[in-house]
Amino acid sequence: MTDLIHSWFDSANVPDTNFPLNNLPYGVFSTNGGAHRCCTAIGDAILDLHALEESGKLEFGGALKGGSWNAFMTRGPGDWARLREALTALLREGAANTADLQPYLVPMSEARLHMPFAVTEYTDFYASRHHAFNVGSMFRDPENALPPNWLHIPIGYNGRASSVVVSGTPVTRPHGQLKGPDDAAPRFGPSQRFDIELEMGAIVGQPSSGPISVSQAFDNIFGYVLLNDWSARDIQAWEYQPLGPFQSKATATTISPWIVTAAALEPFRAAPSEREKPLLPYLAEPGPMNYDIALEVALTPEGGHETVLSRTNFREMYYSAAQQLAHHTSCGCPMRVGDLLGSGTISGPQKDSRGSLLELSWGGKEPFAIDGGTRAFIEDGDTLTLRGHAQGDGYRVGFGDCIGTVLPARSVEGNG
Amino acid sequence: MTDLIHSWFDSANVPDTNFPLNNLPYGVFSTNGGAHRCCTAIGDAILDLHALEESGKLEFGGALKGGSWNAFMTRGPGDWARLREALTALLREGAANTADLQPYLVPMSEARLHMPFAVTEYTDFYASRHHAFNVGSMFRDPENALPPNWLHIPIGYNGRASSVVVSGTPVTRPHGQLKGPDDAAPRFGPSQRFDIELEMGAIVGQPSSGPISVSQAFDNIFGYVLLNDWSARDIQAWEYQPLGPFQSKATATTISPWIVTAAALEPFRAAPSEREKPLLPYLAEPGPMNYDIALEVALTPEGGHETVLSRTNFREMYYSAAQQLAHHTSCGCPMRVGDLLGSGTISGPQKDSRGSLLELSWGGKEPFAIDGGTRAFIEDGDTLTLRGHAQGDGYRVGFGDCIGTVLPARSVEGNG
Repeated sequence: MTDLIHSWFDSANVPDTNFPLNNLPYGVFSTNGGAHRCCTAIGDAILDLHALEESGKLEFGGALKGGSWNAFMTRGPGDWARLREALTALLREGAANTADLQPYLVPMSEARLHMPFAVTEYTDFYASRHHAFNVGSMFRDPENALPPNWLHIPIGYNGRASSVVVSGTPVTRPHGQLKGPDDAAPRFGPSQRFDIELEMGAIVGQPSSGPISVSQAFDNIFGYVLLNDWSARDIQAWEYQPLGPFQSKATATTISPWIVTAAALEPFRAAPSEREKPLLPYLAEPGPMNYDIALEVALTPEGGHETVLSRTNFREMYYSAAQQLAHHTSCGCPMRVGDLLGSGTISGPQKDSRGSLLELSWGGKEPFAIDGGTRAFIEDGDTLTLRGHAQGDGYRVGFGDCIGTVLPARSVEGNG
Repeated sequence: MTDLIHSWFDSANVPDTNFPLNNLPYGVFSTNGGAHRCCTAIGDAILDLHALEESGKLEFGGALKGGSWNAFMTRGPGDWARLREALTALLREGAANTADLQPYLVPMSEARLHMPFAVTEYTDFYASRHHAFNVGSMFRDPENALPPNWLHIPIGYNGRASSVVVSGTPVTRPHGQLKGPDDAAPRFGPSQRFDIELEMGAIVGQPSSGPISVSQAFDNIFGYVLLNDWSARDIQAWEYQPLGPFQSKATATTISPWIVTAAALEPFRAAPSEREKPLLPYLAEPGPMNYDIALEVALTPEGGHETVLSRTNFREMYYSAAQQLAHHTSCGCPMRVGDLLGSGTISGPQKDSRGSLLELSWGGKEPFAIDGGTRAFIEDGDTLTLRGHAQGDGYRVGFGDCIGTVLPARSVEGNG
């Protein structure tokens, strides 16, 4: 574990800030309704990288001036390292000419954060052992909870990139086909079992045109975001056989506004749990490729107080993002800059480490307490918040909050 | 049924050309390795629309000069109709100044065709009654071949846009995890049951941000292409439970180079077969939204002659593309210009109207005859060709060929 890198910018040295100099996450902000600008976070401020490139203080071929991180990612690992080094030098304790940087610092409270990158395609996996076991126990057979392929394949499906939104975007409760087990026919109405999935998202920063190794896949991942894969369990139950989830997962997926880079997470690499069956060679990891990132999910009812529902850790993954990406390319599938890979719901072994309300309420049968009431699934007006950070020695590398408030379903008339 | 619209360009008036003046499909071409240019097809020639806009003879805000049709689609139905009218006026028998147009006509034999549009996201459906019945009979229970949701939902899953390629692009046989029913564990190797799916693709030409009606969905579809959804049946069998097909469908999807517009297909609208169960109101069609398009698939072994394997018709769909698109938006999923919706395999009721080798060989158990041999699935060097046209009175509106040749799998070393 490295130590805190001290900055001359004091608020970056506070032990509980998400954004010490060790982090340097990448985002996109605006002020007063202006243009979207690439930035990093340092303590309680935003550093305007768009303006720094415009002024000639940084030089990345204009990639910091496009209002999203895709162009910069495309430039590749050499420039990824060079920008991190340049920012560290500018912000480090003892740096010269710190006054020159002041005009480029914006208080975070004055900034609005936007999608940090354009999502090219979105894939969602199912790669946490405890989540797969819980869901399999509820819906299939507790004796055979894991599908037979689960210990061999990082199971995934393609999601819908157009539905990915940034933290803070309200989420409208979806309509869909619903059919109870005793109903003769389905009806069309608002989901009654609307849920979250606590996940991490890995961002592909380099393209590939054929199968790549796990090691190459690791190198191609630019960074990570928190990811909430909103899920309508009742729509899913009726639609998902035989071709998988579709409309149940396409209302919205919320990501945190800050991309925490793989470079910032490097000190927090962690090994996965022991393999229960040997992996095929194309999935073998040359080293630990999980990360030790503490995660939590909280629910705040409209006008009420927050209750933390669950605490878990990204290190629970059975398959790392690098393994998922390598598997994704195994059939020759081309990957592009901006592809987003959801880890799958991250559940730990305990009841209070489950990453979805489905698991926390055990399919709705065991409602849990929140401020002023109970919940089995999300009610209108509820705000769901994901948080995550890697804990260093006297500092943390944090993601900031990933927030969404659920609005009532559209009126039926709105469905044409 | 309208009649042939006569052109002063003689090869457009031949009864078996795919490209009479009634068609005016949109594509992208280059000559001698030059830039990609928007074009239409007329008889045996290509009309360079890029150059026509450059010269001021057409004016669409530069949308014809971008090397793909996305920018033009974004301009909306008013401009879609205006371009069709302008081209009809320029090419119609009796048009003035036909000599002025000659410099913009390129013999088709001198042109190379490219992807006509950038695929934003790709969704694949499962919406032909006979295909779903055949597959359900083979893999599940012939007595209950259709999944219980099938007569209520246009079942679909998200595919992989990065894998969509234009006709003529070779397709490398994929590797993947394979496990026979009696194998103790899976192995990683080249697919032995590589297959095609004969489909049509609908192209979304206007964005939507919430649920839309079937009628609005119909209006938002810009046009159609032939679509071959290459499928590795052995990879699919092992991976697809519980979240659907993933690597089995991500090697390649080949589309025809010409977008035949909804406007050109308007005279060929056809009603679907009778509903076996009433559809929910959000899926009701205000009128016939299928199309009468004759389809065929042919196989040519390396160095051999072509055998037509199957003849079917797009009118066989139980759900139209408009219904699929409306369903796609029902949960609030945003749709964008360039989204591609595969119809699902189009099989007819007869054995020789099945749209996949899986069905034609009944899961590999009944190999069928081709030139010089038999086939159950695709062998290396085989070329698969889809063709389609709507038959008018003395003319046809055709799609051209949608072709792919299968190359041997990569060497194992290539898989890192």
